Amino acid sequence: MARYGTQFGPDITFHEVPRCDWADPGTFAGADVVVLGAPFDGGTSYRAGTRFGPQHIRQASYSRAGGARPSLALRVDALRDLAVFDAGDVEAFSGDAERMVHDLRHAVHALAAAGVVPVILGGDHTIAWPDIAGVAQHYGQGRVAVVHFDAHADTGDVEFGSLIGHGQPMRRLIESGAARGDRFVQLGLRGYGPPPDTLEWMARHGIRAYEMTEIGARGLDECLGEALAIAADGCDGVFLSVDIDACDPAFAPGTGTPEPGGFTSRELLDAVRRVGYELPVVGMDVVEVAPPYDHAEITSFLANRVVLEALSGIARRRADARDGSRWDPRQPLLDDRRRDG
Amino acid sequence: MARYGTQFGPDITFHEVPRCDWADPGTFAGADVVVLGAPFDGGTSYRAGTRFGPQHIRQASYSRAGGARPSLALRVDALRDLAVFDAGDVEAFSGDAERMVHDLRHAVHALAAAGVVPVILGGDHTIAWPDIAGVAQHYGQGRVAVVHFDAHADTGDVEFGSLIGHGQPMRRLIESGAARGDRFVQLGLRGYGPPPDTLEWMARHGIRAYEMTEIGARGLDECLGEALAIAADGCDGVFLSVDIDACDPAFAPGTGTPEPGGFTSRELLDAVRRVGYELPVVGMDVVEVAPPYDHAEITSFLANRVVLEALSGIARRRADARDGSRWDPRQPLLDDRRRDG
Amino acid sequence: MARYGTQFGPDITFHEVPRCDWADPGTFAGADVVVLGAPFDGGTSYRAGTRFGPQHIRQASYSRAGGARPSLALRVDALRDLAVFDAGDVEAFSGDAERMVHDLRHAVHALAAAGVVPVILGGDHTIAWPDIAGVAQHYGQGRVAVVHFDAHADTGDVEFGSLIGHGQPMRRLIESGAARGDRFVQLGLRGYGPPPDTLEWMARHGIRAYEMTEIGARGLDECLGEALAIAADGCDGVFLSVDIDACDPAFAPGTGTPEPGGFTSRELLDAVRRVGYELPVVGMDVVEVAPPYDHAEITSFLANRVVLEALSGIARRRADARDGSRWDPRQPLLDDRRRDG
Amino acid sequence: MARYGTQFGPDITFHEVPRCDWADPGTFAGADVVVLGAPFDGGTSYRAGTRFGPQHIRQASYSRAGGARPSLALRVDALRDLAVFDAGDVEAFSGDAERMVHDLRHAVHALAAAGVVPVILGGDHTIAWPDIAGVAQHYGQGRVAVVHFDAHADTGDVEFGSLIGHGQPMRRLIESGAARGDRFVQLGLRGYGPPPDTLEWMARHGIRAYEMTEIGARGLDECLGEALAIAADGCDGVFLSVDIDACDPAFAPGTGTPEPGGFTSRELLDAVRRVGYELPVVGMDVVEVAPPYDHAEITSFLANRVVLEALSGIARRRADARDGSRWDPRQPLLDDRRRDG
Amino acid sequence: MARYGTQFGPDITFHEVPRCDWADPGTFAGADVVVLGAPFDGGTSYRAGTRFGPQHIRQASYSRAGGARPSLALRVDALRDLAVFDAGDVEAFSGDAERMVHDLRHAVHALAAAGVVPVILGGDHTIAWPDIAGVAQHYGQGRVAVVHFDAHADTGDVEFGSLIGHGQPMRRLIESGAARGDRFVQLGLRGYGPPPDTLEWMARHGIRAYEMTEIGARGLDECLGEALAIAADGCDGVFLSVDIDACDPAFAPGTGTPEPGGFTSRELLDAVRRVGYELPVVGMDVVEVAPPYDHAEITSFLANRVVLEALSGIARRRADARDGSRWDPRQPLLDDRRRDG
Amino acid sequence: MARYGTQFGPDITFHEVPRCDWADPGTFAGADVVVLGAPFDGGTSYRAGTRFGPQHIRQASYSRAGGARPSLALRVDALRDLAVFDAGDVEAFSGDAERMVHDLRHAVHALAAAGVVPVILGGDHTIAWPDIAGVAQHYGQGRVAVVHFDAHADTGDVEFGSLIGHGQPMRRLIESGAARGDRFVQLGLRGYGPPPDTLEWMARHGIRAYEMTEIGARGLDECLGEALAIAADGCDGVFLSVDIDACDPAFAPGTGTPEPGGFTSRELLDAVRRVGYELPVVGMDVVEVAPPYDHAEITSFLANRVVLEALSGIARRRADARDGSRWDPRQPLLDDRRRDG
Repeated sequence: MARYGTQFGPDITFHEVPRCDWADPGTFAGADVVVLGAPFDGGTSYRAGTRFGPQHIRQASYSRAGGARPSLALRVDALRDLAVFDAGDVEAFSGDAERMVHDLRHAVHALAAAGVVPVILGGDHTIAWPDIAGVAQHYGQGRVAVVHFDAHADTGDVEFGSLIGHGQPMRRLIESGAARGDRFVQLGLRGYGPPPDTLEWMARHGIRAYEMTEIGARGLDECLGEALAIAADGCDGVFLSVDIDACDPAFAPGTGTPEPGGFTSRELLDAVRRVGYELPVVGMDVVEVAPPYDHAEITSFLANRVVLEALSGIARRRADARDGSRWDPRQPLLDDRRRDG
Repeated sequence: MARYGTQFGPDITFHEVPRCDWADPGTFAGADVVVLGAPFDGGTSYRAGTRFGPQHIRQASYSRAGGARPSLALRVDALRDLAVFDAGDVEAFSGDAERMVHDLRHAVHALAAAGVVPVILGGDHTIAWPDIAGVAQHYGQGRVAVVHFDAHADTGDVEFGSLIGHGQPMRRLIESGAARGDRFVQLGLRGYGPPPDTLEWMARHGIRAYEMTEIGARGLDECLGEALAIAADGCDGVFLSVDIDACDPAFAPGTGTPEPGGFTSRELLDAVRRVGYELPVVGMDVVEVAPPYDHAEITSFLANRVVLEALSGIARRRADARDGSRWDPRQPLLDDRRRDG
Repeated sequence: MARYGTQFGPDITFHEVPRCDWADPGTFAGADVVVLGAPFDGGTSYRAGTRFGPQHIRQASYSRAGGARPSLALRVDALRDLAVFDAGDVEAFSGDAERMVHDLRHAVHALAAAGVVPVILGGDHTIAWPDIAGVAQHYGQGRVAVVHFDAHADTGDVEFGSLIGHGQPMRRLIESGAARGDRFVQLGLRGYGPPPDTLEWMARHGIRAYEMTEIGARGLDECLGEALAIAADGCDGVFLSVDIDACDPAFAPGTGTPEPGGFTSRELLDAVRRVGYELPVVGMDVVEVAPPYDHAEITSFLANRVVLEALSGIARRRADARDGSRWDPRQPLLDDRRRDG
Repeated sequence: MARYGTQFGPDITFHEVPRCDWADPGTFAGADVVVLGAPFDGGTSYRAGTRFGPQHIRQASYSRAGGARPSLALRVDALRDLAVFDAGDVEAFSGDAERMVHDLRHAVHALAAAGVVPVILGGDHTIAWPDIAGVAQHYGQGRVAVVHFDAHADTGDVEFGSLIGHGQPMRRLIESGAARGDRFVQLGLRGYGPPPDTLEWMARHGIRAYEMTEIGARGLDECLGEALAIAADGCDGVFLSVDIDACDPAFAPGTGTPEPGGFTSRELLDAVRRVGYELPVVGMDVVEVAPPYDHAEITSFLANRVVLEALSGIARRRADARDGSRWDPRQPLLDDRRRDG
Repeated sequence: MARYGTQFGPDITFHEVPRCDWADPGTFAGADVVVLGAPFDGGTSYRAGTRFGPQHIRQASYSRAGGARPSLALRVDALRDLAVFDAGDVEAFSGDAERMVHDLRHAVHALAAAGVVPVILGGDHTIAWPDIAGVAQHYGQGRVAVVHFDAHADTGDVEFGSLIGHGQPMRRLIESGAARGDRFVQLGLRGYGPPPDTLEWMARHGIRAYEMTEIGARGLDECLGEALAIAADGCDGVFLSVDIDACDPAFAPGTGTPEPGGFTSRELLDAVRRVGYELPVVGMDVVEVAPPYDHAEITSFLANRVVLEALSGIARRRADARDGSRWDPRQPLLDDRRRDG
Repeated sequence: MARYGTQFGPDITFHEVPRCDWADPGTFAGADVVVLGAPFDGGTSYRAGTRFGPQHIRQASYSRAGGARPSLALRVDALRDLAVFDAGDVEAFSGDAERMVHDLRHAVHALAAAGVVPVILGGDHTIAWPDIAGVAQHYGQGRVAVVHFDAHADTGDVEFGSLIGHGQPMRRLIESGAARGDRFVQLGLRGYGPPPDTLEWMARHGIRAYEMTEIGARGLDECLGEALAIAADGCDGVFLSVDIDACDPAFAPGTGTPEPGGFTSRELLDAVRRVGYELPVVGMDVVEVAPPYDHAEITSFLANRVVLEALSGIARRRADARDGSRWDPRQPLLDDRRRDG
């Protein structure tokens, strides 16, 4: 097996799920989901450190290896109800963004083509370009909608003399046709950028961006419902891209470009759960976790839970599709019907 | 006096209240409340460090020693309106959980038997077993309801080959009859455990557990009101057990098993205030503060305030009982009637 | 030019706006706003470190120098729409509070007299005395209302044997007549002080203090609307004083006297935005940022955004006054009318 | 295979050497060395956290997994020249020191009996009792000399009411006859303890303790030479016990009971190298690495190097025994004879 | 008793020695040494935080309160062999350096006049002026030599417009005649200051300053011997002033103005031990410990040991004077003669 | 002026020396030295973060801007005795190592060609390739000897699929002929790499590498003298490349690949001083300072002093060449002859 393993540190897997090699579908036969690390931080415009994201997100757990991990919110155990593998990292030399984009896209496409949901652990947000493009390469250009949680629009054009970087992936995706602007929803934007010409480019391409002031004034539930409807409209699948800086720096200090005024961790987890449960997710990434700036691993724990909660949503969605039940967030945890049902 | 003092660091007391010896009731004659430290972290399943909890909770103050500490929320000064003493720590060798459980239960029972409200500063949550069992030993098996704030149910059976540990105290209490499952309410549960068989055990014993998704969907006020009604129903007293990880790691990073998606500090303080004011509290513990993982002491400050706010609630409850007034959270701080009343 | 420069570290300016010398109005001709640093922490009663506040607040940015910084919330670029200069620091020897108070008041008055809005970066809250007194010296005693966000009332009388200190500036201002008590609104108070006699003094002078319990019970929007109406009633201008500890320690750990149970960063930013937009702000300070206690610069970033968001409010207020438009927080970010309008 | 794995975090091995099960010698057939983790901190008298020592020592590496790791000092590659396996951790519930002592001794004895050198990664120094007793159980009571680097003598009698603890293992070993006092050498002692009666007990048993003042006055080379001669005198093997706090806190801040005035890391590495090269090492432990108190992992890196350098010494000793060469520390790194020899 | 207590945190004493009131000699009758805290950081020219020095130096201990603390180096137990009390802190408002200088000098003089050795815990180095002036006020102007360990000369004239500050105390002492320049020895100077005119002033007053390059080239033993001879020449007593930044930042990161290239902790402890043992110490201070910049308390531990080791030197000096013995640093720790002698 | 400024943070200069533009020699007419930042960390094989090195090294100072900075060791004020400018940073996108190598080499060559000594602040050690190649481009291939302080040889061939990276610059330099292997001396190597084939390549090219064991056994003075003689033999100039990890992690924790057992800061500063004073330095870089892993800025301070001390050596060398004097490290700081001479 040509598995690359983990680029930094020992070769571990997400919550100790089985290893596989993305280049060899036989190693993940029957998989629903394959986790892939992209330990790249060469594209960040400020603080580096996300290269350690995959390692820290994988191991952010206080439970013993191999045990049950039932979601109390959704009453499923995603790592058991779904067949999840971990393909290790793609080799990602931070000094060569172009090679990384090429190699990561190739790996993600291979996974999508094999019918699994790739879950990519970043790495800086540069990786969203190969992540989503790799999925679109399989499902068709413009066939995959994008739900994007972030403090930043990431729709810049050229930065530091490069078309590649963590501030520009969404532009590359829409320009190349991999994703459609009018099926691109963004939640959590705030702060003091992008500049007017970039906002105009975004408007021209029909992106729907929910800035935090609008979310505050209208309520997250209403905005999220609207956003999910846009994403679900006529697409073959949805890619969920979660920049951990969508959350306020209080909840996610371990990141490169922190912007005050963000979501609480509860809001983000609730939203991600809904995306997993309500939409046909065909790929996902979690990015911008920079462990050197974290404290007590709280950002890595949050990112780990973002993955688990999205997977739990997917698992519950599939379970409900099988048995016709419906998840009710108001149901008490120990209510009999849950275990009977 | 045989006072043991503080196990780590100099012999200080909670906000410099007078010292006493739990084994000698004469040293705390007339007391309403006695603080007791349980610097034990041998029962934690992950990060240690709570042994320094008692010291840090006691000294988390930016005010000069000996001054007034009036609660702005409740308009009482708990450390003056109540007679509060500090009995120092019980000797708690972290390498011998069994001895600690025995010795702490003995000390807590002595305090309860002397008619005071014991307030135990942990320490990991292992101590809830001796804390509540010690109180129940005085009031009667099953006569004390439990209000439990926590990210975790703490109802495991055997972990690391032991019946004792910070993941199991609630099971020991209910199994032994010290506490009744149907007068046991839990708020703040979330994440990826306990496993199904434990949840079944909990349901079977009638525990009412409020998971964060339910709290989010129904609102904390409604859930808390319901929970307090259950606790108040036919019991002789209530024990309040606050695991600081009920709060989100953003507010309480200094803890051993952080679980994202928790309460804000305001929610916890508001809830604790209500418990102190609305229920007949006969004992309390604050646990899982792990100073080595804290930043800028914010977790220790929060735990200190949890104690102060519960005591303020108790003090206001007693004052209102005396003069028939009633606390109104909407009343402006500088409203004349307060100081006239 | 007699510009003093920055007291600590290299001579930088807030977001690289042009330098000026407060003592030479010719250096800031045409200015709307002048930033001034007050790197003083000799008045703090607990943790020091705010002397590094001005430096860290000035440089808390992940954007390249000189670029656009459009407020996504308000659709203005305050640093371009307003003429903003940075006068460097006043010399502030922390060992001589009396001299600092004198010198800072002189500098602030000079700026106010020159018709600009002084924005003072603290430093501990001691500086609010010279800040507001300096402005009042120009506008007239009692002619400037004060909107004060803080966990603490800062209305103490004598502390550590001194009339000067970060717990007493508001008393000095009201006693001296610089500010009127009945046009002094405070939001965010909580915790265990001040003592009763100080509360009585506050009530006697007609201060309106919104404690967090009242804000929680009534809602921040309602309380803030009421507070702004008080401040706007018959005054010639408003001074906005933001103690960063108004926010919960989770959002602002880098401060000297953290009090759990505070605002979220979103609440503070929303409130500051409203003050800038709805009231005639004639001066502002941001205080109590203590970088040695910060983590990953999140407190400095928040303070930086508090300034930017207040300035954005002022800029939008002026723009709307010119063209008769009105800011709608519910308007989508990419809505055409914004860019057309 | 009944391998327990790692108690905390994912199941990794020391520099990714192959896994084995200590209870099944077939899994480490042909081994020279087996690494074993003892993640126990229930015996520490002050700061806890060494339970994470095994995990952090194992992964403290900036090299890719699986590559060469040649010692530049000794010109061997210990992990290739020796057959090294990693048996994972023994289950070590910190709340039950007695059980841990029993279980760890059993495991260490099994390894010694299988003819390998056990290398135990602590954990607090409590583990030296089972570590050395386990080895002595195989080689014979009093047949194994001990070379002990430490700031503390660890010869206390009863602490916190217990005979077990990190301040007492050496007493238990000598009292029980497992080790002989007059073949027990200690280097690095300093500070303000143990008390006089303990010193008398030590003298009575013939321990040779080198306090830092003596080492400073006489020179480390001379003292170490003398110490090694004592240890080598008539014993069947030597156990090397390295408490990381032998080093000054500047070099090893991540420890529980730091005592200023210790060795530099170079001194410790030089000394450990000599022990490995000059004495017949039959077992080794490295203890008191407390990652929560570490900074930038420097203590874990040091402990990792202590193990590697001891193993390199052993490897070079064996190589020289085979070919009659002799290591010369003055030889230039790139000298031809090295690669020719 | 009018004891002021500790200014920050609970009222603790150095290693729990008995409390006293410096203004009431009856409270420290029979004392050899009285510890006094000076929690002042208003005089520092860069990082603040030394106000927490007294608290942290007092409690930097991992031993249980009240136990023996025998110096292994000197074979005395200073806290038992000498009568040591702790007078708490002087009130030291950091915003009023002038008042602090006055009040501290008054307190130190009172202690010296009562015949005890004052040991002042800083606080920034500003306090050396009142410390040494207070002692000189009793012994006579110019009658007390000064041995000064520091990275900096602290002989500046005016800084930040003030004669008082942590860069100027030595100038004030020599200018005022309290200390003689030609009995003033400095060890550890290095770096890039003071400027030439200040060096000339120092030379003119006959100060003997040992810069680290000289110490490196000649050896610390030789330089220290020479320095002690100068200090001992014709003086009635010696004041030992230890700025913790004499040590390299690796050993003392918790300080305000760190200068690389300093002493190791062993060198400083060895030197301080010699001063205490070889010279007639009549006063001592330890300054510039800034806990907010410390890591794992290593700087506080070092400062605590500096005090203990100086006291141990004094105790051994007195013991040897009584019985005619002589300390030999080469004597093995467990050598029989020590305990017999 | 086309000055790029600083890539991260405000546009500051090293100790506030004047700005210049490397592309416009008129902006640094008469310069002796030009500082240039290379904020690149895309080539690091482990921890990133050195992109913030230039900013932190520039501002690591506790002195006021613009003041004297006389070297106490060398009795010169390098920033006044030499004409020093700061050209800001080269644009260094970490995601494109190839472009950075090209652009940096171009800038360094321009400076060398203009007759100044370029001092490059890294960034990771990748930059040594363009730094030295740029200088050699002016002085001639193989005409510049290299003195290299480092824990690592940095002579790898291909890593992460790239010829460029921080583990390979010295190989690229020697392979390309820019530097001669037999005029390449390395001091400080240690640890567990490079692998044998790389060592053979190094030996074949005649590199003289001093491993720490050799340095320990023979003494640093002797080894350094020998190394400087090799470097001085028949070359036109010397390039000094200082990887901060040459120092032990205790002194330089803020780095990417820390290796225990290194130099003390005094040893490194002494050695750098000698290089500057004894050899004809024509260029210099200081690399691998990674501020996110630093504590209390001690690594940045050290790197700042490495630059200052090398410049001081150069300045003293030039002064002595003019007046025929000779620096004596044994001379007392305040000796009259210094100021007279």
